[in-house]
Amino acid sequence: MKYPNKKNIVHQSIINYANRGMNLEHDINISNKYYLDNDIAVIYKKPTPVKVVKVDYNNRINTKIKEAYYETPSTTDYNGIYKGKYIDFEAKETKNNTSFSLNNIHPHQIKHLLKIEKHGGISFLIIRFSNLNKTFLLPTVKLENFLVNSNRKSIPLSYIEENGYIIEEKYQPRLDYIKLIDEIYIGEII
Amino acid sequence: MKYPNKKNIVHQSIINYANRGMNLEHDINISNKYYLDNDIAVIYKKPTPVKVVKVDYNNRINTKIKEAYYETPSTTDYNGIYKGKYIDFEAKETKNNTSFSLNNIHPHQIKHLLKIEKHGGISFLIIRFSNLNKTFLLPTVKLENFLVNSNRKSIPLSYIEENGYIIEEKYQPRLDYIKLIDEIYIGEII
Repeated sequence: MKYPNKKNIVHQSIINYANRGMNLEHDINISNKYYLDNDIAVIYKKPTPVKVVKVDYNNRINTKIKEAYYETPSTTDYNGIYKGKYIDFEAKETKNNTSFSLNNIHPHQIKHLLKIEKHGGISFLIIRFSNLNKTFLLPTVKLENFLVNSNRKSIPLSYIEENGYIIEEKYQPRLDYIKLIDEIYIGEII
Repeated sequence: MKYPNKKNIVHQSIINYANRGMNLEHDINISNKYYLDNDIAVIYKKPTPVKVVKVDYNNRINTKIKEAYYETPSTTDYNGIYKGKYIDFEAKETKNNTSFSLNNIHPHQIKHLLKIEKHGGISFLIIRFSNLNKTFLLPTVKLENFLVNSNRKSIPLSYIEENGYIIEEKYQPRLDYIKLIDEIYIGEII
């Protein structure tokens, strides 16, 4: 292993500069905007739930919230419609190079994904291994297979590589997961 | 969407006391819970979007938001899945006895409903005339017909009575709009 030296640090900062704003949430949001603007799909990120405790009504322009706390979301972050189908997914990044820890997802979010599948919707996880620069779509049925057959608290990268699909990164849309949905679900190769 | 102000909240608390739990949002939320618990449909209200400005990270138990403001929602309040179909709607109450003012809905929310319809989803408005104790489901196509053929800034109750559907209020689910969706969309009488 190489220990950090000045050259490496400079290199790191160049990467960060080059990939500014390249985090997963941002990539999905701009992809969704592309799908929306081009009338391909209507998919939005849900707002983060906030419990408002104190509000200042004296503010003339806009009600000012003076005290509030983040709440645990009831469902996944993203949902919407594509070709008449209900789409639902959660997106997570990991810095781990070999596995994806299930601690990254709330148990009720997994339950929600399973429920959507059962009701005839399309649900999945988008998992990015940031250091490897790889982003996968893992269908809920494959997540379920893993949970049923394993007691492990993290999904090995090898399982995701075998059962998931690499999401192509390009200029527009940044993360073309709709193309994959077409191939996996609409074309029914799963 | 109306944002909370002091007057509304005082008024709200009186209504809540008299007709405990009888406001539209509450009725829809408990109906959705019934559908969820009985595995009939998976429909949630989206959290109200809040723009967080200042946060106190010193709070040990939970991050405290010290300054935030309500934002205009990008879409409608409710969406989810029923029998594999994507469901999307906005719900509004009016105290007016003769018409429903279109000022109650943001233009981009109407655009959103039309988009959902175009992409093969089921979208509609739920409108309650509180004083009349009547709650209607108005399909987006009927809303669109009205907008195309009229310059009026409010929809007369008579138009809603002719083109919408009364939502039955009962013990469980409180507002059985899924039963109507079955009749209107799945049975395709529209």
